[in-house]
Amino acid sequence: MEFLVQIEVRLPAEIDPQRKQALLEAEFARGKELIQSGAIRRIWRLPGRFANFTLYEVPDATVLHSLISSLPLWPYMDVTVHPLAQHPLEKER
Amino acid sequence: MEFLVQIEVRLPAEIDPQRKQALLEAEFARGKELIQSGAIRRIWRLPGRFANFTLYEVPDATVLHSLISSLPLWPYMDVTVHPLAQHPLEKER
Amino acid sequence: MEFLVQIEVRLPAEIDPQRKQALLEAEFARGKELIQSGAIRRIWRLPGRFANFTLYEVPDATVLHSLISSLPLWPYMDVTVHPLAQHPLEKER
Amino acid sequence: MEFLVQIEVRLPAEIDPQRKQALLEAEFARGKELIQSGAIRRIWRLPGRFANFTLYEVPDATVLHSLISSLPLWPYMDVTVHPLAQHPLEKER
Amino acid sequence: MEFLVQIEVRLPAEIDPQRKQALLEAEFARGKELIQSGAIRRIWRLPGRFANFTLYEVPDATVLHSLISSLPLWPYMDVTVHPLAQHPLEKER
Amino acid sequence: MEFLVQIEVRLPAEIDPQRKQALLEAEFARGKELIQSGAIRRIWRLPGRFANFTLYEVPDATVLHSLISSLPLWPYMDVTVHPLAQHPLEKER
Amino acid sequence: MEFLVQIEVRLPAEIDPQRKQALLEAEFARGKELIQSGAIRRIWRLPGRFANFTLYEVPDATVLHSLISSLPLWPYMDVTVHPLAQHPLEKER
Amino acid sequence: MEFLVQIEVRLPAEIDPQRKQALLEAEFARGKELIQSGAIRRIWRLPGRFANFTLYEVPDATVLHSLISSLPLWPYMDVTVHPLAQHPLEKER
Amino acid sequence: MEFLVQIEVRLPAEIDPQRKQALLEAEFARGKELIQSGAIRRIWRLPGRFANFTLYEVPDATVLHSLISSLPLWPYMDVTVHPLAQHPLEKER
Amino acid sequence: MEFLVQIEVRLPAEIDPQRKQALLEAEFARGKELIQSGAIRRIWRLPGRFANFTLYEVPDATVLHSLISSLPLWPYMDVTVHPLAQHPLEKER
Repeated sequence: MEFLVQIEVRLPAEIDPQRKQALLEAEFARGKELIQSGAIRRIWRLPGRFANFTLYEVPDATVLHSLISSLPLWPYMDVTVHPLAQHPLEKER
Repeated sequence: MEFLVQIEVRLPAEIDPQRKQALLEAEFARGKELIQSGAIRRIWRLPGRFANFTLYEVPDATVLHSLISSLPLWPYMDVTVHPLAQHPLEKER
Repeated sequence: MEFLVQIEVRLPAEIDPQRKQALLEAEFARGKELIQSGAIRRIWRLPGRFANFTLYEVPDATVLHSLISSLPLWPYMDVTVHPLAQHPLEKER
Repeated sequence: MEFLVQIEVRLPAEIDPQRKQALLEAEFARGKELIQSGAIRRIWRLPGRFANFTLYEVPDATVLHSLISSLPLWPYMDVTVHPLAQHPLEKER
Repeated sequence: MEFLVQIEVRLPAEIDPQRKQALLEAEFARGKELIQSGAIRRIWRLPGRFANFTLYEVPDATVLHSLISSLPLWPYMDVTVHPLAQHPLEKER
Repeated sequence: MEFLVQIEVRLPAEIDPQRKQALLEAEFARGKELIQSGAIRRIWRLPGRFANFTLYEVPDATVLHSLISSLPLWPYMDVTVHPLAQHPLEKER
Repeated sequence: MEFLVQIEVRLPAEIDPQRKQALLEAEFARGKELIQSGAIRRIWRLPGRFANFTLYEVPDATVLHSLISSLPLWPYMDVTVHPLAQHPLEKER
Repeated sequence: MEFLVQIEVRLPAEIDPQRKQALLEAEFARGKELIQSGAIRRIWRLPGRFANFTLYEVPDATVLHSLISSLPLWPYMDVTVHPLAQHPLEKER
Repeated sequence: MEFLVQIEVRLPAEIDPQRKQALLEAEFARGKELIQSGAIRRIWRLPGRFANFTLYEVPDATVLHSLISSLPLWPYMDVTVHPLAQHPLEKER
Repeated sequence: MEFLVQIEVRLPAEIDPQRKQALLEAEFARGKELIQSGAIRRIWRLPGRFANFTLYEVPDATVLHSLISSLPLWPYMDVTVHPLAQHPLEKER
């Protein structure tokens, strides 16, 4: 099942630069795993914000939660999840 | 450039059934053209609502407006457009 | 997978009473089918409103959409869907 | 009387890991008591968030307040309470 | 149990004056019954609006729903219900 | 004149327990004075929240402000004030 | 006591022009009475909208309600009332 | 003084096509006058919506109101006005 | 031109009392200058909040910004500015 | 393509004055580069707030993101991006 996930990251502006760098690298590494496993199908940045839309394909919401909460930046995230149903136009591609 | 477009359709509940049917068929036909031309890359239903997320790939917002406003149901739509920037993780697919 | 669905019904105050009665009876009959099939697990009224929370258990969001949109009052509904993940405390019951 | 309670937990991202662990364990233990006493009838996670829906069955709002405010994470919670009325479809199960 | 109920009445501006008058009289008569039965304990107008706060004392949300939905203006109402818990200061009166 | 006042208290979760205890006791003592003076006519807890509805009867908004801002927890409060007009049904009690 | 009242007028776009003209003239005449009686102390337009801020000085919210609801456009209005307290800087004028 | 004005047009979907055409032509003609007089400095469409941002340069809010309310579509508009102050970076162009 | 300015002050509850006192005195002194210069025409407290409505009369939004941002409490303020247009009823006073 | 960007800066009120000064100077210098390169076409202050509207002209949202996130105050910003489509009236200037 697909889910569209909107993520806003609220990193404190005064965070220690080294800690920030380490967090960003860990986040990127974990994101890469999720992309390569096929759980993340697409990801886009929202311009001007530390935010993204991510398209997940996972068995259900329980798996989705375990994957999102495995992200190193999760404690700083505000996450909105939209479950997605199939649209009949998709068969016309 | 990609845009994520959220569309809520506010069709009057008391609409004449034949008119509704004609509108839905025209909407489907126009949607099919947009998919086959490559302007619409993906489309999903929001379950429980007459609503969808559509992923467009078009040159700019002016073309996007002309395509969305060409949809037969456009006068009934409430449309929110999110411009999308490339996310570095996309290169890891 | 479970979904918590909040439904607000916006029936026009000036609706013809016979039509209203027919709609309510058809809605009840369809609701009864969904309960007896196991798709609806629980349903509660929000006091003071023509509104309810319904707990669905269905394979995915596509099935959920087909069931909700099969309700006779669907054209009058404003529907919010919350996908649900398992909570570890549930194992302690 | 049943209440549907939506809880968002706003734990500071920079909390000391040991304190966090102790809080989570105490929260789980108290939750288990509330489930085993029958006050909590169901609990679900909202995927991607540190949040849940909890279905309480308690005599009234005063008891509900005393139970929710007994949770160790209560000082970090944003809580919304929905009182629930019986829906006639429930008799059809 | 007490509930604080906020009611906004959305009567169409173009309603027939006689029908409006009949509705207002029926509403007043039903409100008088609810006050005299003790279900409504207090009622206040929100100045400048066709709206009120009503303090109900009823056994539970199911009874509350049956009383509010018995009001002749109910089809025109937008209703928000706040369940109320006892406050320890009340014992100091 | 009566005012319905909704108060949400945003006490920091990490506040020193002794300071919290002292603040709560001072708040209770001041609340007791306001009840006994007749300025506070009723007070209810919102279940699950550190929040209340308070019904004040005071000469005007200037006196109301001086009383609310005299509460020891005032610096932590988010306060919404609803002025109240008399409702004709009140005469039917 | 002073109140700041924000009024948005939702006149149907398709209203009969003669009826609109009559309503506007009656509204102006009633507004003139309220200004000349001293109940309305100031009134400003919100540019671009059919809306205004009005500063009332009246004994209490009950009188305020009777005055606002005496306006011919009242059935079309969405009204927000802010009670006002004296500010110590006012004594420095 | 400059103002940024956001306009959403809520034209009924079921409007008579000839009336719609006449309104749109009149709106375009009046917009052209406002551009050529220098009152409208820039105008942009919000893609996917019947909406625009317009940059006005006018003496004050009273003139702004008279210009916006002179637009033939004004009865159908929802208008938000942002007053603008000079930004020191403008001198660096 | 007149502007109605709504100001909410978000002073940290834990601020040092001497610093708070100094800030409040400096704020009062600056407010007094703005009143005596005629820039502030009226000011009201919102009861129960550290908030006010202020009526400014200034040449334009650029001057308005320089005056508001000269207030000692400005870094703690959340400010909403409403530009005001003349209302024809004002001539009837 | 043009984008209208609304930026609110949430600088902590208690920031060290020297750090604040350095940040503001760096922000101004970077802003000047973006204006002189033609990426920023116009910029306006929102009076009373540490906020602005900026009109960008850039190839796409990916470039826009890289420019906004290059601003020294970006970690303190809340940014809303509106993509803009051409309006036919623009040809009438």
